[in-house]
Amino acid sequence: MKKISILGSTGSIGQSTLSVVNSLNDQFQVVALASGRNLDEFVEQIIAHAPQLVSVAKEADCATLNNRLREAGIAKMPEILSGEAGLVAVACYDDAEIVISATVGAVGFLPTYEALRLGRRVCLANKETLVMAGELMTRAAREHHAELLPVDSEHNALHQCMRGETVDEVKRLLLTASGGPFRETPLAEMREASVEEALAHPTWKMGAKITIDSATLMNKGLEVIEAGWLFNFTADKIAVAVHPQSIVHSMIEMVDGSIIAQLGVTDMRLMIQYAMTYPDRLPTDLPPLSFDKLQKLEFFEPDVERFPCLQLAYEAMREGGTVPAAMSAANEIAVDAFLNRRIKFMDIPRTIEETMTAHDKQACSSIEAILAADRWARQYAESLVANRSSMVGGF
Amino acid sequence: MKKISILGSTGSIGQSTLSVVNSLNDQFQVVALASGRNLDEFVEQIIAHAPQLVSVAKEADCATLNNRLREAGIAKMPEILSGEAGLVAVACYDDAEIVISATVGAVGFLPTYEALRLGRRVCLANKETLVMAGELMTRAAREHHAELLPVDSEHNALHQCMRGETVDEVKRLLLTASGGPFRETPLAEMREASVEEALAHPTWKMGAKITIDSATLMNKGLEVIEAGWLFNFTADKIAVAVHPQSIVHSMIEMVDGSIIAQLGVTDMRLMIQYAMTYPDRLPTDLPPLSFDKLQKLEFFEPDVERFPCLQLAYEAMREGGTVPAAMSAANEIAVDAFLNRRIKFMDIPRTIEETMTAHDKQACSSIEAILAADRWARQYAESLVANRSSMVGGF
Repeated sequence: MKKISILGSTGSIGQSTLSVVNSLNDQFQVVALASGRNLDEFVEQIIAHAPQLVSVAKEADCATLNNRLREAGIAKMPEILSGEAGLVAVACYDDAEIVISATVGAVGFLPTYEALRLGRRVCLANKETLVMAGELMTRAAREHHAELLPVDSEHNALHQCMRGETVDEVKRLLLTASGGPFRETPLAEMREASVEEALAHPTWKMGAKITIDSATLMNKGLEVIEAGWLFNFTADKIAVAVHPQSIVHSMIEMVDGSIIAQLGVTDMRLMIQYAMTYPDRLPTDLPPLSFDKLQKLEFFEPDVERFPCLQLAYEAMREGGTVPAAMSAANEIAVDAFLNRRIKFMDIPRTIEETMTAHDKQACSSIEAILAADRWARQYAESLVANRSSMVGGF
Repeated sequence: MKKISILGSTGSIGQSTLSVVNSLNDQFQVVALASGRNLDEFVEQIIAHAPQLVSVAKEADCATLNNRLREAGIAKMPEILSGEAGLVAVACYDDAEIVISATVGAVGFLPTYEALRLGRRVCLANKETLVMAGELMTRAAREHHAELLPVDSEHNALHQCMRGETVDEVKRLLLTASGGPFRETPLAEMREASVEEALAHPTWKMGAKITIDSATLMNKGLEVIEAGWLFNFTADKIAVAVHPQSIVHSMIEMVDGSIIAQLGVTDMRLMIQYAMTYPDRLPTDLPPLSFDKLQKLEFFEPDVERFPCLQLAYEAMREGGTVPAAMSAANEIAVDAFLNRRIKFMDIPRTIEETMTAHDKQACSSIEAILAADRWARQYAESLVANRSSMVGGF
């Protein structure tokens, strides 16, 4: 029986993880859960899985949670913590061998870092962790022999492709990208794209931020940076292939010219279970990939002019230090501004680029240094957005 | 420096093997060569690679070869043998760690078997060996800890996909098939297909026999049987996917629902080198797979009615014993008869099926038992063809 703790249990990945635990309840036991929102769902999870430790975002929620659990007549009350200390406690909980890191944003940095320093297996679903703090995280994993297993479908696919391979014999990583809704839109139209058009993702249903990131291909840019840290590859050894069907989740090209690919249904439970059970593979009740879905698979080279965000991510990766953190922060501000109709779609890459140019690069020596770059970039990007939105005249 | 011997050095696989040796001449050295035909080419190979032992098919060719080598002023004359004894001597040559088994037909059985019994690595490119004598060969490999590495692109792809996997966690092998020239031809037209139409293979350029086998999908049926022996899988765990582009060379489906695929350019040197250097992968000078080629990949379920040969192969595999040998022999006779315009295209499966029905199954206890089934099936199929061709009135 392997014990697991989950950071972000009421989010989409957290819920899928608990679904995997339910289907493998003779092998996994939840011992600690942390959730930042959705107290109703959290109460149900706690009752169903009986963890020994739970944590909420706000201290005020501790008492509420306590009452709700008592009212529900829970058999054994868990310890209830809150805030960053609570998250770290869940990540480092004594018994947990596996930590699912699925919080959103920088809040997951410290708990993930501490879990790695304890040599735990971390199944990572938080994008920012490696984009912003890849150097710190991978060093901690190396030094403490912790396993860092990606849950994200592309990186999980790469991990599967690399199972039997030697890293030195891999020539290139080939990340696939759906290409988003603007894959074939004329550039002029793209400049005037509405929020609704940008949110109309062809294959995956996701939150607004990540859907816009898919439309700009910044999402893929962030994944390129993540892949670099996860597999220790430089930018020139990672390529992106636009693959509208999203059936091939990623590929690796070997020095001999062979390409190994991972394909599958697009269900996160598959990736989560893989990360939890690796090196074993266990049966799932997911429907097998049908020939209908396989029928036609297409691959294209990404259009550099159409997707400047992808190039910016490569640049940030090559620059290193705090540049990726600044880039990611500027992107968040720009995407938010676009969603609030303050800037136009193609202002997103412009805002990011200007922020990157103005950024005073620092070494990633500590979480504080990274968070400082993040704060600076948010402010700077916000000022750019404010100027731009006043210029476009209350767009 | 690894020493290799090649059975069938002047054939297509043999030539490609020598091309691989040339590009990796600091790692591999040819010590023994056997060739059944093309003495001119053989002389050149011997001069270029200076093997210590060579063998020709006919005893009469020994003296000719000796003279030709002497005339060419070869530095050191190799030992020259002939016939089956010569082939076995090349396969078992003292120094050879790797044996490339690339003869055509049953002539490769005994030398391959003896090399396996010496615990050598056999890179197998001979189809008949596993179809007809899979039980004997795999048992010899197991008992003598010999490695049996497939050179055929589909099986080589499966081997690559399975590198990091546990056999028990593989749910299905998925062999890809181009579907041949009749993939979309109406059944009525297929019955009247000419030799020229059947020989017009869309993607690979191959000999006449294997091209017809591709058109009937018998080629894939033989590969299903081979895959069963190579990876120890039963018929119900091996599926075929028609993939007209021949870019994905094969796939495996895991118990968790993941599919791992191998893709690449269609150049046999890639597979030969892989089999020679496994578990290492070495760089090749082959052009990388371009996005142009990847652009569109299609997969379909094979049409059972259109391709009865595939079903016959599955049946033969389930029956076991000498049935696959009889089936393969009947197929050879039927294909030859079709190529000589003695029977119609759809008479090929009919001839095979009738031979299989009439065959008195025996256990595969010895090479002799297998060769006896082969001889019987050839005679029987030939008598069927003779009746049929007289009926169609000098077609």
